[in-house]
Amino acid sequence: MKKCLLAAVLLLIALVSTQAQDHEKNLRTIFDEALTNGQSYPMLEYLSLNIGHRLSGSPSAAAAVEYTRQQMEALGFDKVYLQEVMVPHWVRGQKEIGRIVNAKTFGSQDMNVIALGNSVGTGPSGLLAEVIELQSLEELEKLGKKNIEGKIVFFNRPMDAKHINTGHAYGGAGDQRVVGPSAAAKYGAVGVVVRSLTLALDDVPHTGTLIYEDGVTQIPAVAISTIGANYLSKTLKTNKGLQFYMETHCEMLPDVLSYNVIGELTGTTLPNEYIVVAGHLDSWDVGDGSHDDGAGCVQAIEAVRIFKATGIRPKRTIRAVMYMNEENGLRGGLEYARVAKEKGEKHLAALESDAGGFTPRGFGIKSTDAVLTKMQSWVPLLAPYELRKMVKGYGGADINPLEDQGTVLIGLMPDSQRYFDYHHTAEDTFDKVNKRELELGAASMAALIYLIDQEGF
Amino acid sequence: MKKCLLAAVLLLIALVSTQAQDHEKNLRTIFDEALTNGQSYPMLEYLSLNIGHRLSGSPSAAAAVEYTRQQMEALGFDKVYLQEVMVPHWVRGQKEIGRIVNAKTFGSQDMNVIALGNSVGTGPSGLLAEVIELQSLEELEKLGKKNIEGKIVFFNRPMDAKHINTGHAYGGAGDQRVVGPSAAAKYGAVGVVVRSLTLALDDVPHTGTLIYEDGVTQIPAVAISTIGANYLSKTLKTNKGLQFYMETHCEMLPDVLSYNVIGELTGTTLPNEYIVVAGHLDSWDVGDGSHDDGAGCVQAIEAVRIFKATGIRPKRTIRAVMYMNEENGLRGGLEYARVAKEKGEKHLAALESDAGGFTPRGFGIKSTDAVLTKMQSWVPLLAPYELRKMVKGYGGADINPLEDQGTVLIGLMPDSQRYFDYHHTAEDTFDKVNKRELELGAASMAALIYLIDQEGF
Repeated sequence: MKKCLLAAVLLLIALVSTQAQDHEKNLRTIFDEALTNGQSYPMLEYLSLNIGHRLSGSPSAAAAVEYTRQQMEALGFDKVYLQEVMVPHWVRGQKEIGRIVNAKTFGSQDMNVIALGNSVGTGPSGLLAEVIELQSLEELEKLGKKNIEGKIVFFNRPMDAKHINTGHAYGGAGDQRVVGPSAAAKYGAVGVVVRSLTLALDDVPHTGTLIYEDGVTQIPAVAISTIGANYLSKTLKTNKGLQFYMETHCEMLPDVLSYNVIGELTGTTLPNEYIVVAGHLDSWDVGDGSHDDGAGCVQAIEAVRIFKATGIRPKRTIRAVMYMNEENGLRGGLEYARVAKEKGEKHLAALESDAGGFTPRGFGIKSTDAVLTKMQSWVPLLAPYELRKMVKGYGGADINPLEDQGTVLIGLMPDSQRYFDYHHTAEDTFDKVNKRELELGAASMAALIYLIDQEGF
Repeated sequence: MKKCLLAAVLLLIALVSTQAQDHEKNLRTIFDEALTNGQSYPMLEYLSLNIGHRLSGSPSAAAAVEYTRQQMEALGFDKVYLQEVMVPHWVRGQKEIGRIVNAKTFGSQDMNVIALGNSVGTGPSGLLAEVIELQSLEELEKLGKKNIEGKIVFFNRPMDAKHINTGHAYGGAGDQRVVGPSAAAKYGAVGVVVRSLTLALDDVPHTGTLIYEDGVTQIPAVAISTIGANYLSKTLKTNKGLQFYMETHCEMLPDVLSYNVIGELTGTTLPNEYIVVAGHLDSWDVGDGSHDDGAGCVQAIEAVRIFKATGIRPKRTIRAVMYMNEENGLRGGLEYARVAKEKGEKHLAALESDAGGFTPRGFGIKSTDAVLTKMQSWVPLLAPYELRKMVKGYGGADINPLEDQGTVLIGLMPDSQRYFDYHHTAEDTFDKVNKRELELGAASMAALIYLIDQEGF
């Protein structure tokens, strides 16, 4: 009996060790394929340079849907299809004007501004009002209606440079842009100017969505560059009664039909269990959306292509999903989760790349502690690829709606230092993407999906 | 007695825990200073844009010596001085010509080439000869003198993209450039063309040093861009007897006097023990040497400045050393080590930054296993700053001569993906440096030096 037990234990050890060797070999194969025969870079080149930016509802968003659909067909994915989703259709209209006006001298100075996404426009007559500078939403209550009514509120709290991960710095300042306009409107503000959400000091304004609160007056809002914000703040200190003129021509049109784009590789033994690998196809209507989030889309396609090209056949069905409308509505993510629930599809895990196509450093995981611990045990297998970070995290905006179905949510964590230099600006362009960094991200996604598929939870 | 022992153990635990808390606090202070009040970026801006490239022996190298000396004086370092060192004085002369010449049709095509550092020139009459393509030095012996004599050898083995760390890919191809010319000359070759050492596919040639072997005929050598190398290789396949024309005007002049630049912060309790933090001041004579290695120099100065600014006073003497002549002679590193030995200075550790000013990921260490293990125990303190890599490594070219004095040698390991896109080219310029990435590198160096100083080995 004892001998029997010993033999069983030895067999088990041999099996586990063989499996670990298989994993090592397959991970190496995945990275080799991405680095020597990678397709993510030429795919991004097409998406960025031939199609360009692609805000939800725009003709170029439709082109991006068709391009990625065709691409996955051409790559021979087992199943490629579109999932209908109605999306908001916000348009910027002609270029914004922002202008500091000195009420005493009538001197004026134009500033680089950009309307926030989903904002109402001022229309051609523009908006001229006195400016009041605030560092936080909490100051609204302190100052009260008497100090704010009829004014343009200028939210100027910078992102905190002390954060090592710039995403945390973004999170700490984002409330001013997202909910600032409605918060200010409750105190009678007539417009909002927000300091651009970046740690870079330059003259490039950053757009991004605002969310109007139901039942609150919708007031127009723009972002001003960080250099502009510093200048406005300095000027305000010596010019009481300083006014700001803003003119924006944006408007929200009726919803239009668009699509999530989905491509599958069918699992061999557990085809009804799904692992999602994702990015979002829409971008802001400036630059070409290469880092946000063209990179994530081509990496998702590439991750599935790598499985096909290497012959590493997953047990579960791998689904590359290009979500629509992450930027100003999240309709794609919500619809995908709704349909998955309706169909009773079991989603084991979802992995999104939406933090730029920079060198990957690891993964942020939203799961039970047990699952996190299990995934952390894979770090020795991933460390040779410079993936040493496996931490509690956020997942991703598009995949988060799957949370209540018990799906493990994972966000690819690339190096964060440069992302907010380009984020939501005319500077988010293809030339800012490094080929190998993009490829390593795609390989990292394929590698993690491989381990999840093989090991389960 | 048992109570006594328990009390002692508890006291020890309390002390260790207090110390760990001090370390956590001080590391946070170091990073906060670098990220909110950092001076590395404006220093690099001056070095790169006002002084520019600075090959050993050039007037701009002298300017860089004086700038960094003045800078450390202005920052109030305890001691700032120059260490004399004679350096080689190689000059490029007028721009190189590289040309494919079809011996049959007499058609020709100009190619982007750059003379290798320390190469002899062809002079104005140039060099025209048949080309033979090789993938390795080993092929020289296989082909023998009869196939090589009188020809230009074209070494075309690419860097291997499968390496995750691009430094390893560089190491695997570098022999062609460094020792290829003398190796080929032994078989009667009259010139050498080397494929540029980069993973990028572009038309920018990369220079870098060659080392002529004593007693072997010195033949001229150039690097060709990767696009050019692919084109030449393709053309060779269909055009037997293809010739290459190269014209270079470089020459080696007599040695000139230059300097290592040294700035110290005197230790409080162990002032006669030294920790070196270093970069090298010389650069190639193209671009402005921002990543190689202006970044390392300003990070070394910044690391010491951070100690002063934060009031974290080290026990040991911290020496910022800007070495001269890393690129084509290593005279500064050799002289520094010689003097240190002569004076009997105890160098506990030396840390060099010479892999670009990109986001730091950790450190490569050349030491005993015991020291490495001790340093690895600090990873939990460094991981909040995204420094998770503490591995056996190489140190750095300039600090390596200290090895036989028992000095622990450490290289800062930044993200490696972009470095060889710019390395030794006209593209290594200030605009390729990200402010926060540079600052994080400086803070990482200060942080590690802080731990070495506090904990010792």
